[in-house]
Amino acid sequence: MNNFRFYSPTEFVFGKDEEKNVGELLKHYGATKVLLHYGGGSIKRSGLYDRVIESMREMNIDYVEQGGVRPNPIDTDVYEGLTLCRDENVDFILAVGGGSVIDSAKAIAAGVPYEGDFWDFFDRKATVKEALPVATILTIPAAGSEGSAATVITKADEGLKRGSGSQLLRPKFSIINPELTYTLPMWHTAAGIVDMMSHIFERYISKTKDVILTDRLCESTLITIMEAARTILKEPKNYQARATLCWAGTIAHNGSLGVGREEEWTTHGLEHELSALYDMTHGAGLAIMFPAYMKYTLDEDVERYYQLATKAFGVPANHFHKKDVALEGIRRLENFFKELGMPIRLNETEAKKEDMPKLLNTLKRNMGESFGTFKTLTLKEAEKIYELAWE
Amino acid sequence: MNNFRFYSPTEFVFGKDEEKNVGELLKHYGATKVLLHYGGGSIKRSGLYDRVIESMREMNIDYVEQGGVRPNPIDTDVYEGLTLCRDENVDFILAVGGGSVIDSAKAIAAGVPYEGDFWDFFDRKATVKEALPVATILTIPAAGSEGSAATVITKADEGLKRGSGSQLLRPKFSIINPELTYTLPMWHTAAGIVDMMSHIFERYISKTKDVILTDRLCESTLITIMEAARTILKEPKNYQARATLCWAGTIAHNGSLGVGREEEWTTHGLEHELSALYDMTHGAGLAIMFPAYMKYTLDEDVERYYQLATKAFGVPANHFHKKDVALEGIRRLENFFKELGMPIRLNETEAKKEDMPKLLNTLKRNMGESFGTFKTLTLKEAEKIYELAWE
Repeated sequence: MNNFRFYSPTEFVFGKDEEKNVGELLKHYGATKVLLHYGGGSIKRSGLYDRVIESMREMNIDYVEQGGVRPNPIDTDVYEGLTLCRDENVDFILAVGGGSVIDSAKAIAAGVPYEGDFWDFFDRKATVKEALPVATILTIPAAGSEGSAATVITKADEGLKRGSGSQLLRPKFSIINPELTYTLPMWHTAAGIVDMMSHIFERYISKTKDVILTDRLCESTLITIMEAARTILKEPKNYQARATLCWAGTIAHNGSLGVGREEEWTTHGLEHELSALYDMTHGAGLAIMFPAYMKYTLDEDVERYYQLATKAFGVPANHFHKKDVALEGIRRLENFFKELGMPIRLNETEAKKEDMPKLLNTLKRNMGESFGTFKTLTLKEAEKIYELAWE
Repeated sequence: MNNFRFYSPTEFVFGKDEEKNVGELLKHYGATKVLLHYGGGSIKRSGLYDRVIESMREMNIDYVEQGGVRPNPIDTDVYEGLTLCRDENVDFILAVGGGSVIDSAKAIAAGVPYEGDFWDFFDRKATVKEALPVATILTIPAAGSEGSAATVITKADEGLKRGSGSQLLRPKFSIINPELTYTLPMWHTAAGIVDMMSHIFERYISKTKDVILTDRLCESTLITIMEAARTILKEPKNYQARATLCWAGTIAHNGSLGVGREEEWTTHGLEHELSALYDMTHGAGLAIMFPAYMKYTLDEDVERYYQLATKAFGVPANHFHKKDVALEGIRRLENFFKELGMPIRLNETEAKKEDMPKLLNTLKRNMGESFGTFKTLTLKEAEKIYELAWE
């Protein structure tokens, strides 16, 4: 087990109707003028928007709005929010939505008190020294951004999708009402499930030995996610299953399941190129890239994948044929993603083989010539993983 | 699953040599004059004291000391610390030790800015509105106080042992170096193991249904604690096992494993009377009281105890004889406590049967005429549980 720091100061406010407390929470955390930051019109159709406004009005909290934030959040939306916050003297950002909305809220929060271009934080030219406080009302369990220090933004004109992060960007509070996810289209529910499982894989597939407690917590969370997912496929309004997924998505990415080990994140890097180039849903890209990554890196540590297969995917143990067991685990994962209606190969998407040089070129700009902790990969090897993902 | 709030803002700094960063952390969290609060002489013998002093000096952090804090922390130590903090204008309390030292540090922190008697917080006459910041260097994995909002203090002259709590009392940071626990006597290691397992039982033994994710996380943590404990019995200096126990003790009580369910805490209440009356080690008292509590409440929800037996204690499932399976689970737990060298019956301790009226009398003062969430108990029933614990 490695030394670690675990810091998750976000107050999670979880359960039915909790969004009605947003005004009180904003007041408690010192907000006076809020940027209400949200995506498409679904929060208006569902009545969530009205409940949020009402709760803020009751507490006399002033606000300005920025709606229409796009999925795979882009820099232009961030610039728009930045200007609005500065012009209106906003002192608190409330993101109502999924990971995209929360990520762009974080980028704005970091950008407002910064004199340079906010992209500097994503270009590794600057680190966040100060930020507006952010809070969230989560509507899509997936990205875990409601409890994380991280944000991922796409620079639209250059096709660069990059992450940044700071403890200062952890939400002050996050309201998670599982009922808000009842009407989520199955595609987004499924993509969210892949995303949260991937956040666990990026931590679990590690060379660090003897992190037995977090291993077990990861395996338990994976099993529970798959179980809840299968319930939701049949009963989209099953509260317990929706609640389970919501909380699993949060703990999958607030750091709890990564303590004490070197994390990976290469597959997220490989996927970001796909979603930047094709505007692919992040979870769908991960459903394609994770099995490919696992197959490519299997020989690096068969034991690790054997443990995953037997402990999380229910493959019967067989000490004489560990690699076969490990491979069967990956097959079961692919089958599970298929059950969810996710693609598991690039040929099921709009991706084109002739784009490979383009993919590798932006990968190089984003990740460098080599990357990875579980297995150090060259660009040539990344190409092989994309090929494995093909068909 | 119930609605819940999960808030664990403590920064956990975990691993080898991390105590050397205490000065830097104190500075980061704004300390200028620290109360260094500790127990017996072990931190001096081990060199920990010197390392802490050196790290504070390097950062020019001024300090005053209060050593000699007693186990099962008592009010007189709190009053002493309070006066010292006020006289010396202390603005930060650093507790170096186990749960007792941390709990009394929290009581002092709450008391310093309060005009009345700090015991008001334990008497439910007042709630904490303000507190000095607290941080910890943990030397005994057990109480979980390094990551909790709670504190338990004994009013020595009246034999009252009571808890209080406030989010304001959560440590700003807690340094947890597993190596510091190498020299802990096996008795204290064992009592700590019982304590952390009990923190999970108080959450797991609940009537709230459908908290499947936390159920699994609880079961995984229990299994891992027992596994690590058995390693430590053979190899007290096994780093991985010590580290596992340290982190398990923290997450067992920072709230992670209780989300979404009604918690219990009756057995802690029953035990507090024992440790107040006989100065019994808290973990030893719990090793006696938990099996008794489980047996007495078994019929309240056989299914729950059946799940515990099969999922955490490895008893083979048998759907036709669930109660037998559940009872076998409790027997295995008792055997595990015996392996640790803990007493499992009151007749192994200095407790005297003729003290029963005294026990029940203080129980009544502390808990009232009836108490409990999993099963509401009367004082008469509490007496039956003490009797079950006898032999």
